[in-house]
Amino acid sequence: MATETRRLADLAGHDAFIHRHNGPSADDVDQMLATLGIDSIATLIEQTVPAGIRLGRELSLEGPRTEAEALDYLKRLARQNKVFKTYIGQGYHNTHVPAVIQRNVLENPGWYTAYTPYQPEIAQGRLEGLLNFQQMVMDLTGMELANASLLDEATAAAEAMALCQRANKKAKSKAFFVADDVLPQTLDVVRTRAHYFGFELIVAPAEELAAHEVFGALLQYPGQSGVVRDLGGLLGTARERGIMTCVAADIMSLVLLKEPGALGADIVIGNTQRFGVPMGFGGPHAAFFATTDKLKRSIPGRIIGVSKDARGQQALRMAMQTREQHIRREKATSNICTAQALLANIAGFYAVYHGAEGLRTIAARIHRLTTILAEGLRHKGIALAHDSWFDTLRLTGVDAGKIHGRAMTHEINLRYFEGGDIGVSLDETTTAHDLDVLFDVLIGEEHDLSVSALDETIVSAGSSGIPAACRRDSDFLQHPTFQRYRSETEMLRYLKRLENKDLSLTHAMIPLGSCTMKLNATSEMIPITWPEFGQIHPFAPHEQVVGYKQMIDELAAFLVEITGYDHISMQPNSGAQGEYAGLVAIRRYQAAEGQGHRDICLIPSSAHGTNPASAAMAQMKVVVVECDSDGNIDLADLRAKAEQHSEVLSAIMLTYPSTHGVFEEGVREACQIVHDHGGQVYVDGANMNAQVGLTRPGDFGADVSHLNLHKTFCIPHGGGGPGMGPIGVKAHLAPFVSNHVVTPIAGVNADCGAVSAAAFGSASILPISWAYIKMMGARGLREATELAILNANYVAKRLDGYYPVLYRGVNGTVAHECIIDIRPLKASSGISEEDIAKRLMDYGFHAPTMSFPVPGTLMVEPTESESRYEIDRFCNAMIAIREEIARVENGDWQADDNPLVHAPHTMADLMDADWSRPYSRELGAFPSPAVKAAKVWPAVNRVDNVHGDRQLICSCPSIDEYRD
Amino acid sequence: MATETRRLADLAGHDAFIHRHNGPSADDVDQMLATLGIDSIATLIEQTVPAGIRLGRELSLEGPRTEAEALDYLKRLARQNKVFKTYIGQGYHNTHVPAVIQRNVLENPGWYTAYTPYQPEIAQGRLEGLLNFQQMVMDLTGMELANASLLDEATAAAEAMALCQRANKKAKSKAFFVADDVLPQTLDVVRTRAHYFGFELIVAPAEELAAHEVFGALLQYPGQSGVVRDLGGLLGTARERGIMTCVAADIMSLVLLKEPGALGADIVIGNTQRFGVPMGFGGPHAAFFATTDKLKRSIPGRIIGVSKDARGQQALRMAMQTREQHIRREKATSNICTAQALLANIAGFYAVYHGAEGLRTIAARIHRLTTILAEGLRHKGIALAHDSWFDTLRLTGVDAGKIHGRAMTHEINLRYFEGGDIGVSLDETTTAHDLDVLFDVLIGEEHDLSVSALDETIVSAGSSGIPAACRRDSDFLQHPTFQRYRSETEMLRYLKRLENKDLSLTHAMIPLGSCTMKLNATSEMIPITWPEFGQIHPFAPHEQVVGYKQMIDELAAFLVEITGYDHISMQPNSGAQGEYAGLVAIRRYQAAEGQGHRDICLIPSSAHGTNPASAAMAQMKVVVVECDSDGNIDLADLRAKAEQHSEVLSAIMLTYPSTHGVFEEGVREACQIVHDHGGQVYVDGANMNAQVGLTRPGDFGADVSHLNLHKTFCIPHGGGGPGMGPIGVKAHLAPFVSNHVVTPIAGVNADCGAVSAAAFGSASILPISWAYIKMMGARGLREATELAILNANYVAKRLDGYYPVLYRGVNGTVAHECIIDIRPLKASSGISEEDIAKRLMDYGFHAPTMSFPVPGTLMVEPTESESRYEIDRFCNAMIAIREEIARVENGDWQADDNPLVHAPHTMADLMDADWSRPYSRELGAFPSPAVKAAKVWPAVNRVDNVHGDRQLICSCPSIDEYRD
Repeated sequence: MATETRRLADLAGHDAFIHRHNGPSADDVDQMLATLGIDSIATLIEQTVPAGIRLGRELSLEGPRTEAEALDYLKRLARQNKVFKTYIGQGYHNTHVPAVIQRNVLENPGWYTAYTPYQPEIAQGRLEGLLNFQQMVMDLTGMELANASLLDEATAAAEAMALCQRANKKAKSKAFFVADDVLPQTLDVVRTRAHYFGFELIVAPAEELAAHEVFGALLQYPGQSGVVRDLGGLLGTARERGIMTCVAADIMSLVLLKEPGALGADIVIGNTQRFGVPMGFGGPHAAFFATTDKLKRSIPGRIIGVSKDARGQQALRMAMQTREQHIRREKATSNICTAQALLANIAGFYAVYHGAEGLRTIAARIHRLTTILAEGLRHKGIALAHDSWFDTLRLTGVDAGKIHGRAMTHEINLRYFEGGDIGVSLDETTTAHDLDVLFDVLIGEEHDLSVSALDETIVSAGSSGIPAACRRDSDFLQHPTFQRYRSETEMLRYLKRLENKDLSLTHAMIPLGSCTMKLNATSEMIPITWPEFGQIHPFAPHEQVVGYKQMIDELAAFLVEITGYDHISMQPNSGAQGEYAGLVAIRRYQAAEGQGHRDICLIPSSAHGTNPASAAMAQMKVVVVECDSDGNIDLADLRAKAEQHSEVLSAIMLTYPSTHGVFEEGVREACQIVHDHGGQVYVDGANMNAQVGLTRPGDFGADVSHLNLHKTFCIPHGGGGPGMGPIGVKAHLAPFVSNHVVTPIAGVNADCGAVSAAAFGSASILPISWAYIKMMGARGLREATELAILNANYVAKRLDGYYPVLYRGVNGTVAHECIIDIRPLKASSGISEEDIAKRLMDYGFHAPTMSFPVPGTLMVEPTESESRYEIDRFCNAMIAIREEIARVENGDWQADDNPLVHAPHTMADLMDADWSRPYSRELGAFPSPAVKAAKVWPAVNRVDNVHGDRQLICSCPSIDEYRD
Repeated sequence: MATETRRLADLAGHDAFIHRHNGPSADDVDQMLATLGIDSIATLIEQTVPAGIRLGRELSLEGPRTEAEALDYLKRLARQNKVFKTYIGQGYHNTHVPAVIQRNVLENPGWYTAYTPYQPEIAQGRLEGLLNFQQMVMDLTGMELANASLLDEATAAAEAMALCQRANKKAKSKAFFVADDVLPQTLDVVRTRAHYFGFELIVAPAEELAAHEVFGALLQYPGQSGVVRDLGGLLGTARERGIMTCVAADIMSLVLLKEPGALGADIVIGNTQRFGVPMGFGGPHAAFFATTDKLKRSIPGRIIGVSKDARGQQALRMAMQTREQHIRREKATSNICTAQALLANIAGFYAVYHGAEGLRTIAARIHRLTTILAEGLRHKGIALAHDSWFDTLRLTGVDAGKIHGRAMTHEINLRYFEGGDIGVSLDETTTAHDLDVLFDVLIGEEHDLSVSALDETIVSAGSSGIPAACRRDSDFLQHPTFQRYRSETEMLRYLKRLENKDLSLTHAMIPLGSCTMKLNATSEMIPITWPEFGQIHPFAPHEQVVGYKQMIDELAAFLVEITGYDHISMQPNSGAQGEYAGLVAIRRYQAAEGQGHRDICLIPSSAHGTNPASAAMAQMKVVVVECDSDGNIDLADLRAKAEQHSEVLSAIMLTYPSTHGVFEEGVREACQIVHDHGGQVYVDGANMNAQVGLTRPGDFGADVSHLNLHKTFCIPHGGGGPGMGPIGVKAHLAPFVSNHVVTPIAGVNADCGAVSAAAFGSASILPISWAYIKMMGARGLREATELAILNANYVAKRLDGYYPVLYRGVNGTVAHECIIDIRPLKASSGISEEDIAKRLMDYGFHAPTMSFPVPGTLMVEPTESESRYEIDRFCNAMIAIREEIARVENGDWQADDNPLVHAPHTMADLMDADWSRPYSRELGAFPSPAVKAAKVWPAVNRVDNVHGDRQLICSCPSIDEYRD
């Protein structure tokens, strides 16, 4: 029977994808093992993964399946979703993704496989895209500064609340006001966050804002049921009373409405989904966060700023970057890492492609259709809750049951308020014909309304739902970038020009330690732009999302098996969000057990800065546990601290394998120590790629982990997001994960607030991880992990002797990444890890992770997807660079005049008529045969970070014409 | 009511796409008109298009529609196609398009918008792809030479027949042998072609080949009903008897079967569709054509060869290119222009990605499944027509009706032979489960067969359907390119490296006169990879292709309205094929009228070489009509020649506007003259982009035209194909267009043979033209034509004074393109049109058409899709080049040492340590601000054509490792 099964599997070619995903061929593996002097993969793993935690069996997963089979199955699941015409609104709207953007950005690996733009010289394309996004947000909100996206509107609101408290030093109150027509999912997330910050929430009608003693306030504009309120008076009063104000605004409405900045808001937040990003059952989309100039040093998330390069040319970069890389740890009020770069770029390009005129046409059409609808309904005696509107009406006193019945017949989703009111939100996809159908649904088919007659009426009467005081009278998007690319041809070329400035996985390996830049296979990406996944509203009725639910359930089951946990919560839409959700679950569990006073979180000194930040946000006190000289947790210190805090110990957060890239032998013991003192064990999932199929955190003592699906499970980095950070938990924590106020989640306690705006986070990218696991199967996943470890050890071996390799396991092996020490070289030559990082660009590579976890080092993670060919190419470049450093050491080149400090080299360098450097142009820009054959040019010379931070400019500069 | 309609249309934004397709904004138009000194577009058109032929009304077409509406409608049409599992075979098979290739080649404008690689320095990427294709064909067929694709297998067979006759000088016979198990559609096309060549066709069993006196023979391998015949004996005997032999081979079977080259074939042809190209209801796919070395100077179509560049580096190019550009005119036996470059690249990449091992796995699996099927059927007493097979079985003595009924229930297509036999062809998508279902269908559901048991039996017995003598024992695809890119990551990077070597419409305008390189909008391209269009067999039953038929009918109706003809034949799959089909229709019509003796074809001296070649292939005699000094047809000469040949005048072929880019005033009169003498009027549709919405050939006297859908109607050039050349005809010609033997076409006479393998040519790319017309509507199409004319006149105006503009209409305007004369400059400076073409690369542009229709000139066609911005950029480059020429003229630079003769400049030039040229590196490679901001690097220096033609190498060279 086994033979028969194998035969038939063989006939189907089921394992084909494994060999597409994994880079090294069988020959490569043999040669790499020979280099390592190890006889087999099995031996390598035995030497690397402690025997006491090895899984000892194959994971129990179906598969592998071929790409075609996986896609066929997903297609069948997708077809179980029903794409109704949705008018639910509530923060999510239908949109037309411009085809030229969909195909050339969203579906283009040149965009989606890029990394976060920490290396700006090879990231000017997406940095320009993100600067466009910031400019668009600043223009539409009327604010002075905007960041380059947050995870979702609800998270942005929570961050705004935290910022109000941080920035409003004079306020004595610990209370925060939330208008009662804020979106319910926003309130849900804000409530969770407020609880652990110790803030009191006051939820009341917006008009009552001035009546409360609060440090800040959040208003919705327009209100969730559609009302367009003149916020000027409220915001003015709040300012007088020392209350900082946040306005959650609908981005499309701002085209026609007076901008909140002009009305006096301190912070404006919102979602840019309806600017060309599919709803995708809740995400991913890019939220925006805009502030006054005064708050510029406190704004959370990533900000793109304008600086200059070594030749004095304008160059973009992430501003105040060090702040991001060194999160304030235990003093943090934010743990944000991931942005939604890919989606922010798309929203920005949507604005670029439409321009101010195009957006005005779209917004005006939406508003005109809404006004026709309002006119018709009133004509038929249907009462509206408000006299003002942009795109949303709330019908009161109607027979909701009858309307619901008719709506289902017409395959239409409306918003059903408690109490029987009906909400209708129109969007750019709504047509006059749709209004006909809506009248049929809302009034009944006997009505005699004519859309064109109604239109005639409202046009001749000059009717509008926007009160005169609320009408926008200022320009926006006047920068040339928003005017130049109106034809598809011009837009296409703009997108391609930007793409071609950036280095992505389409060019070379991106060996970022801890970031796991592996293959994002095309077949994994294909489903995410299927309409059956894209055009689903997150609050669509259950029976319309059967396919989504099943896909999510199946993925959760896969992850349960892979991690050894009992349950997966799919809500957190970033790794940091996952950390927060996991710690909150621990705190809720402990509170339910009468142990709510436990608030000490032990964190090893080697931890990523996000860990203590997350702990602080969960109102925990961080106690640092020391590491020994090998980088392992000092178990004696751990034992001492656990004992010391035994009565109040809440949890430990540790990373496995450690951030030093080592499988610590003592992990099981560490978990036991914490458990023995009543604590819970949080294992950071960043390094899960070294564990899959070999060991499981749920087996060695962990209670909860987040999983970076954008690392281990193939969601692409998108140039800095989206990510997904679901958490795995043991059964006792399962009732305490995040719930959702609009779409409650079975098995989770009702009073557990949300951490993200949508119940399943960024649901539309989950098919990527589903497909990866399905196409690899148990064997493929295990082999991937083994090869990731092999590749890392091969790198360590090849670089050893040129650069010291720090931290190894007891048998001298590393896990899936290795750290090389640059400090001795810096001492002997003055060449820094940054010089090496920039010089690697000349060789066609992205730098490894710099100075994390140890300053002055580089951390290399090749992943299983890189072939020996590419890894050799990288190692050869590193060795060649070492030889270049030697020429500085021996005085052949001056420390301030050599190809390392001048790196990266650009076309501008080569254009120089005078070349007075002590090395040739060829050595500068073409140091290897590979780059002669296929050069990836850094678009600018080395970027001056200090200059940019001193003179913070985060709007589109007056770019010189770059075309003649 | 008109207002109301406008209002509602306004509400829908119906005209949005027009402004995406057309480049110039309203402001641009105003400024361009001002430059021309013309007050309005209307005046420009009045001055340009002769009053006597102007349409004088808007076309009667629905639309415009938005991109979303057009795609929604097409989706609904697509869903009317039924994707059954097909086992029809007969030259078309299911295939898995590797996702990484689909997304990064087929769906990537970087590949599909490129032009035919006439300028090799900016086309090395696709040239390498095509060289891979040639190598793959040579390896699999065992031949010494292969071209880079023909239109389809049937056309390739017809070309092979013609080549046999050309090459077999000793043969006295005018007869050609065709084995009776050649594919019926191949026979159909060969028959048509043979008729007009005056060849007799002998169709008989392959074994009888030696019994006939023929100049050549065509065999099918395996035979169409599946038999695998050892051809060695037959081919040997044929050779002895002076018969040239052609083998039509299945590309997948050649992985396992002895290669025809080793068996002694002179020519091997076939289709590469099943190497990763969707069936698409018949096309497009790339056919191959391989020969012995002896025939290398006679092989039809494009051949990629290896040569060297000005620095002595290896460089690829189209070999023997001049032959293609100067088709043998009236002596031609082939009129081939278009290849299927995009599809050839895909098939080549499929082989690169799978390699020899992968292809062996696939072919062996197909064969093993077929053998299981045969074993099971025999076990159940079902007789097979043959004892041998690769992937196809022919069942005899079965109850076809019952089987058909069961097959329909299971949504399965089989091949139904006349007489009741059933054909079943398996392919790479067939699974063991599919065999279960096939047994149910073929035997009935009561059977007790087990696929795994049968597999056990055949594996242990070593069963095979391939006779021992027919088994392949030679290696193939041993070149490193076919071994290196096995992981998706490596493949992706390879594809991107190649893409980034090439200039396409994603970078800059490609101002090719007569080639109409306009926007290929994303929304137009999206449907072509929908499975409902891709996975349809061309011989699927009518009821499964309802959506296709309706789309084709609608497109035909649009084209009828646009051209003024009465009927469209959608079969010809290239412009040249359309010319041939149109002339054949004329000849058939005249024969039916008793005028079969009419065989004179008048062709103006300015005509494209394809015209006389097509006439010759239709057995017509070409009589050249002179042009006057303005490039117009000399009406007096036309009258004289028509009169002289009045009794035998068959037709005139003319191009309108003329190949000189002028709307000739006398076109109506010219048509009348020909009609008066009993002739028919063929109008070449190459310049249709200047006519749409302004004038119609069917109105001014034409009887037939082909329409280059890949020019005027937005099918992308694909780097040298696919194209589509449907013909419009007046009613009297409609019964005489091409029919199809397998899927007869209503309204066409039964005895009219086919010109292409599939009834509707390359049906799967027709949605592109459909969508274009639908999204533009009548107004958009007219405006496009007007703007194409405006843009061309603007170019002429801006260049006037720098370069003489040849040929204008009576009011001094040009049509949609303009010709500038380089001959005076060459005389004064030695700088040639080729130097200018190459120098334009340094400025980031593709050259205009060189030396057609007038030697020593450049013909510029900007199209309506280019913005004023881009056109100015081009004109500025041309003016800057003129200034460079002036420096040669005035002796500032030597004629043999200046940036023009050294163009294009490459990275290799800049790397030179010594730069001794009289101009700077910057002037050489970065002569304009635009290229400093976004440089498109030529991959090689100027290519040496003569060297390559002297030493013809058309296989993959031993490429030096270009990665370290």
